[in-house]
Amino acid sequence: MFFEGSEKKVEIAVRPGSRSLRELGEEYWAEIVAQSNATILSRVTNEECDAYLLSESSLFVWDDRFLMLTCGTTTLVNAILQFLGTYGQDNVSMIVFQRKNEYQSHLQHTCFEQDIVALDKIVTGKAYRLGHLDAHHNYVYHLDAPFTPPEDDKTGELLMYHISGPVAEYLRSEGQTREGIRERLQIDALLPGFAIDDFVFEPYGYSLNAIRGGDYATFHITPQENSSYVSFETNLTTDGENANLFNQILQIFCPKSFDVISFNSSPVISVPANVNCIGHYAQRLECGYDMVFRHYLETVDQPLPAEQML
Amino acid sequence: MFFEGSEKKVEIAVRPGSRSLRELGEEYWAEIVAQSNATILSRVTNEECDAYLLSESSLFVWDDRFLMLTCGTTTLVNAILQFLGTYGQDNVSMIVFQRKNEYQSHLQHTCFEQDIVALDKIVTGKAYRLGHLDAHHNYVYHLDAPFTPPEDDKTGELLMYHISGPVAEYLRSEGQTREGIRERLQIDALLPGFAIDDFVFEPYGYSLNAIRGGDYATFHITPQENSSYVSFETNLTTDGENANLFNQILQIFCPKSFDVISFNSSPVISVPANVNCIGHYAQRLECGYDMVFRHYLETVDQPLPAEQML
Repeated sequence: MFFEGSEKKVEIAVRPGSRSLRELGEEYWAEIVAQSNATILSRVTNEECDAYLLSESSLFVWDDRFLMLTCGTTTLVNAILQFLGTYGQDNVSMIVFQRKNEYQSHLQHTCFEQDIVALDKIVTGKAYRLGHLDAHHNYVYHLDAPFTPPEDDKTGELLMYHISGPVAEYLRSEGQTREGIRERLQIDALLPGFAIDDFVFEPYGYSLNAIRGGDYATFHITPQENSSYVSFETNLTTDGENANLFNQILQIFCPKSFDVISFNSSPVISVPANVNCIGHYAQRLECGYDMVFRHYLETVDQPLPAEQML
Repeated sequence: MFFEGSEKKVEIAVRPGSRSLRELGEEYWAEIVAQSNATILSRVTNEECDAYLLSESSLFVWDDRFLMLTCGTTTLVNAILQFLGTYGQDNVSMIVFQRKNEYQSHLQHTCFEQDIVALDKIVTGKAYRLGHLDAHHNYVYHLDAPFTPPEDDKTGELLMYHISGPVAEYLRSEGQTREGIRERLQIDALLPGFAIDDFVFEPYGYSLNAIRGGDYATFHITPQENSSYVSFETNLTTDGENANLFNQILQIFCPKSFDVISFNSSPVISVPANVNCIGHYAQRLECGYDMVFRHYLETVDQPLPAEQML
């Protein structure tokens, strides 16, 4: 029943004057997605963005950039290599490739070290290992080229582990429905005016893409007891207008542990007294992003799971 | 500079009337050790026990049981299989095989699941995954056969991560000596009357075996910044006579995080106010041991390391 929820993520921007990424069409992107061992399930589109829901996470395509997230044992690096090879690496102005700590990293086809060796054969980048390896940590690679992100290019990631409470129970139950999940996640209130595309996996698991103009948000839920993981990511300004967004989501999932990762943004987090931030880093990426990580934990003595394997 | 300090561990007892394990001789044990990709460096011996210091950890041999710990990317399961094949699995009354969470599990030759599949072809056991996979956790396998441990068969393990303070500094420094390390670890005070055998690795790293009658203690130190790990293990009664032993060792290494694992023992731990036990499990192993795990953490917001990889 184990499924690796932790995502690999890439964001790539192309040079002004390059061919529109949306014009490349669904067939092109289906081939890129296939390189990571995922497939396109469905699509929602508006005037600025095509959002693809994948068998393993999401792909958002704007004219001048795309964002791809994949979980499980997908090989996202192969999708990146395929894109660089077919679109032309000289047409690319920014790459940020990120891997989060996995529950079971030994089941992955490649490790981050191997991924960056493969990338470095084609482009020149910098890479960091951030955080303690025996706790939540991140790997990040970026193209070693100056880049000035647009003013509104802010990203917030909320990564939740060991979810609990009634919504977690529902997500692990039989007979759950798309409508039942949307209602419990309070999607209408959290993401007003967004076009929604979502999918309920068998026997568990839920993915949601949401777009509104150039804004996006995405949920990926792996509810399995003992290895639950829920990610939420958005370019909404979680420090201004939507300052309470992450806190609302935390109240829905009641995670025992969570991470907040931000790029040029400072999501506001207010937590109960028994939840503490027990580690942080702030890494200035020379490609124009301030990456900040904060690791939160319920610091009470919890009974830990014992799972019989044999 | 990365070295995986986390150990794999096996303890095997043989049936009364079986051939003495010590009588098998150093050549026999050298072959067992070789199967795990380690070698014997030195030996200290007394009337009850032969203690071998290994290139990667330790082997203690009594007449009726042995204990082997190996770290790095060793393949301890192969040593167990070699022992069972040559000594005869029918002569064995107890096996407990344990793997701790590794800093970089994807660099190991096998995972625990593969190890227990290999063991299960020869013997019948039970196995558990204990703890959250995204935090410190353990795997344990035991022979599925009734066993009554002797009254004095108590084990305590103290596993320390992210050591700090003057002793940690010294252990990472150039020009360290065996005497310098023994003095800073206060070996004479911690382990009075024990025969000591120790080794300083290049450029860092220290292992120590200590025996006194049937008592043993062993230290293994991987001091590398960002992936430091120190293990201490003993069959001294850390809840009675030596109740302060683990606390003294904690004061020497000042770890930011540590685990206490015990078998039929309850080590006394007293910690500063900013260190909290944030998880525990107690698993009754049907082969006669109560295994208890406690995970402690300094629950203050710490700046986390950022290591440039490229």
